[in-house]
Amino acid sequence: MNSEKSLPTYKTVADMIDHAILKPNITREELTDEVLKLKPYNIGALCVRSSDVTYVNELAADIDTKVITVVGFPHGTANTAGKVAETKQAIADGAAEIDMVINVGFLLSGMISEVTADIRAVVEAAHPLPVKVILETAFLTAETIAAGSKASADAGAAFVKTSTGFNGGGAAIEDLKVMKAAVAGRSELKASGGIRSLDTLLEMLDLGVTRFGTSATIAILDDLQSRYKTGRSLGTVDETSY
Amino acid sequence: MNSEKSLPTYKTVADMIDHAILKPNITREELTDEVLKLKPYNIGALCVRSSDVTYVNELAADIDTKVITVVGFPHGTANTAGKVAETKQAIADGAAEIDMVINVGFLLSGMISEVTADIRAVVEAAHPLPVKVILETAFLTAETIAAGSKASADAGAAFVKTSTGFNGGGAAIEDLKVMKAAVAGRSELKASGGIRSLDTLLEMLDLGVTRFGTSATIAILDDLQSRYKTGRSLGTVDETSY
Repeated sequence: MNSEKSLPTYKTVADMIDHAILKPNITREELTDEVLKLKPYNIGALCVRSSDVTYVNELAADIDTKVITVVGFPHGTANTAGKVAETKQAIADGAAEIDMVINVGFLLSGMISEVTADIRAVVEAAHPLPVKVILETAFLTAETIAAGSKASADAGAAFVKTSTGFNGGGAAIEDLKVMKAAVAGRSELKASGGIRSLDTLLEMLDLGVTRFGTSATIAILDDLQSRYKTGRSLGTVDETSY
Repeated sequence: MNSEKSLPTYKTVADMIDHAILKPNITREELTDEVLKLKPYNIGALCVRSSDVTYVNELAADIDTKVITVVGFPHGTANTAGKVAETKQAIADGAAEIDMVINVGFLLSGMISEVTADIRAVVEAAHPLPVKVILETAFLTAETIAAGSKASADAGAAFVKTSTGFNGGGAAIEDLKVMKAAVAGRSELKASGGIRSLDTLLEMLDLGVTRFGTSATIAILDDLQSRYKTGRSLGTVDETSY
């Protein structure tokens, strides 16, 4: 990584952040507090549970931040009809993008046509809104990551995404490289799970990742603002090297 | 507990077991092996992921064991339309019972009318087949366990159930007592999560639990068979006391 290069603009980074508020036991009050705290940051999206879309859409009506949601989350093994109906209702409620979980059991079983059909049904239900496919890389090998990425691109997914954050593991550079090669420019990359620092984000941005799922949004963007002031581009670089 | 009392019959216990095969990364091959191993045990039900219902229904067509499934699993925060469609498709695929996860975020927020409406929609979609409502007691207090149990009974749930097994915690006697009092005979009780021994099952059976979700089915039923042979009723009782 080149420590000399300039930082991306605040808008570039903020626009690429999907802030995740997905824990099953979050209350309406906690959700409200978190959304209100994030409003001044003008991030790209708030990624919420599908039963919260209507509420958060009203709460965030006065800002440009999109409300997006997850489908078949976090196991991905719900039947296709359930995923499709959840998608349609979420969009009717105001969701701007859909992050669906791949049927990881089918993927690990080599049932690629079933995996592709499941994704395609959600892509068609969401059309023309973008669908991201969560592969849950923690369960996968390089081979199955590639197969899942290819199936996603074949089915018209706008993005392939690493992790739910609920089944162990998280975004890893090696996995993102496999995903990038497999989609061959047909889908974008979203890194999620364990992205807690600006340095991790910048490293993945360098690789070509264009979307970041994180719950550490405020820490990341505050760090970015502070680096503009100090002229420091990378947190891990010795300042004496400037 | 009375160590002198006789064991329930094999059929009584086996009929009350819903064997859970729910991990997201189980392959078709692993699923097949597990179902085939369980066939000779004549248990009440195989509880599988909703995308596996068709397949397991074919695999288990020659035995009396029912195929049942989970909906909105394991977070419970999917929107109602998704849960309803997942339920209808699962029943069309051959599911005989539906174990849905309560919207725990709503429950913790005191949104009881929304919780009840979500359950009622699934109960109506499944009618006349029974719906069990998973409370996910690990996230709850005695007060919210009671509120969730009452909402479930109000909405026509056949059972209230403790846990998914995926969000920490599991069936506890104290929680089951709260559930029993709250449903006041209107719904039955299902204990699930961490039920790994016959003694645990027998203790809960004494309390009035009529269904058990477990992955330790073979160990439990083998232990039961062995106790018939040895005349031992409870594993923890010193045999010199007979």
